[in-house]
Amino acid sequence: MRHFAPLSTAEAGAYGLTDDAASLTPSAGCELIVTKDMMAAGVHFLADDPADSLGRKILRANLSDLAAMGAVPRAYALGLALPGATPPGWLEQFAAGLAEDQARFGVTLIGGDTIRAPDALTLSLTAFGEVPQGGALRRSGARAGDDIYVSGTIGDAALGLLAAEGGLGMIAPAQRAALVERYRLPRPRTELGQRLIGLASAAIDVSDGLVADLGHICAASRIGARIEANLVPLSPAADAACANDPKLLTHALAGGDDYELLITAPPRAARQLGAAARAADTALNRIGSVVGEAGVRVLAVDGGEMEFASAGYTHF
Amino acid sequence: MRHFAPLSTAEAGAYGLTDDAASLTPSAGCELIVTKDMMAAGVHFLADDPADSLGRKILRANLSDLAAMGAVPRAYALGLALPGATPPGWLEQFAAGLAEDQARFGVTLIGGDTIRAPDALTLSLTAFGEVPQGGALRRSGARAGDDIYVSGTIGDAALGLLAAEGGLGMIAPAQRAALVERYRLPRPRTELGQRLIGLASAAIDVSDGLVADLGHICAASRIGARIEANLVPLSPAADAACANDPKLLTHALAGGDDYELLITAPPRAARQLGAAARAADTALNRIGSVVGEAGVRVLAVDGGEMEFASAGYTHF
Repeated sequence: MRHFAPLSTAEAGAYGLTDDAASLTPSAGCELIVTKDMMAAGVHFLADDPADSLGRKILRANLSDLAAMGAVPRAYALGLALPGATPPGWLEQFAAGLAEDQARFGVTLIGGDTIRAPDALTLSLTAFGEVPQGGALRRSGARAGDDIYVSGTIGDAALGLLAAEGGLGMIAPAQRAALVERYRLPRPRTELGQRLIGLASAAIDVSDGLVADLGHICAASRIGARIEANLVPLSPAADAACANDPKLLTHALAGGDDYELLITAPPRAARQLGAAARAADTALNRIGSVVGEAGVRVLAVDGGEMEFASAGYTHF
Repeated sequence: MRHFAPLSTAEAGAYGLTDDAASLTPSAGCELIVTKDMMAAGVHFLADDPADSLGRKILRANLSDLAAMGAVPRAYALGLALPGATPPGWLEQFAAGLAEDQARFGVTLIGGDTIRAPDALTLSLTAFGEVPQGGALRRSGARAGDDIYVSGTIGDAALGLLAAEGGLGMIAPAQRAALVERYRLPRPRTELGQRLIGLASAAIDVSDGLVADLGHICAASRIGARIEANLVPLSPAADAACANDPKLLTHALAGGDDYELLITAPPRAARQLGAAARAADTALNRIGSVVGEAGVRVLAVDGGEMEFASAGYTHF
């Protein structure tokens, strides 16, 4: 409580976290966008990840969902199931990480619950953002002939998990560290998302994996997609890893936790999209096209079709 | 997913649970009230509690928080951390319980997340309600001279947990069953809460225990309270248990999970409060008075002061 109340002062409706519930009213002309995630130690983060990264990780994962709807982030509620063995100073560190991200992303804690966990640390977070009434980006608007774009780079988090577990010994330590950092701390594309309203025909954030999430857009829009593996942007570290072991490219394209934005847009929007990406200081690269035929096809550099054993996680 | 999507159809902004986030706009002239709870197996419910009661328990606990603010319930988002060993049919049963309560309380599922739990089942729920702009009941409005009231009966859930664990052998099996049922399934005072706007000076729901939650009102309102144990309403089953073992009365007054409403109101509101309680078909009994001197004092039947070792749970 004493660690969290100071995080609530920017929203009067949080009542300093001293009441039964909080009050939240969207700004005039806006609708409220709501998203919720859970994460557990040993499943979504490593038990020895630094405490200040854990709250930020689930917060940023939720902010990424808001970005995929084009929403401006505003507030969040936090659930914390703490095992009895939480070391001294842990809560201070955890809250300090949240404080840093509140300043960075302009969000405020408005409520929550701390319980005793029977075993592993489990986090739950509900985030709130705003979009102009009727403006929310959806998964369902992609049309055959649209271009497919992705922000930033793909595969870093999935490769970063391998590195955190002791793998990828063949690349430089600094590159391994860069990948681990991407696994620990998502970079939600908050600035870009809100600039895509009116430009993107469909949007999703890449959390289940590029191929799986493109599949979600295809299912919601009742279309198909064809992308080219060599158009998918890789970081220098991911590029080095895949150059050493080409099988890792499949892992990069199918792995999750990228928290990049994957969007479709008609070709006529290309110039405006470029301007939006520059204004948001975020790379946005075309990786393929929407087609009428169902399914996601990924063309390899040699022109053959890449195969994916698993299409990523299946969520709620 | 297939178990939950049918629960989302009444809110268009849930997008059938197929998008990154949901859209929620409060009705004209209303503010949105938000509350969030977590519950874990072995801490908040028993591992062998029936699956259809678990979602309802956390939903109802949150609806009780909304009732304490005077809010009309509207929607909720659900987080579910499932251990690998969830038996077949469990999710169907879990969702069926939610469906029943959605119909009873007029709420709709608008989103959520299912993850793999490292160990024990953990639930997280964020509930949304509405109050007329500026009308939310708060903990902070109690004044010296106000009366203190509580809805329903107190202590049933705390005694029900004892019974569920094999205790209270001295009362009739039907009475034990009635207490266990109160532990498993809270009865949020949804109808009453919304009728208290403009009448109650402060309100809270009894989740930490009557004495502790009265302490929360006192702290927020900077006043004190004096209640009389023999005015606190007990169910016939709780009454029978306490008659057999008078120490159980302390347990009843300090135990948690009652999910009754504890309110204060000026004496002039008494008649209107009675009418509100009758309209909501809910008992509402005066148990004491707000006083200027800090602290919660509980007078025993013999005129002495009851002592409480613990003032209930301390939450987030």
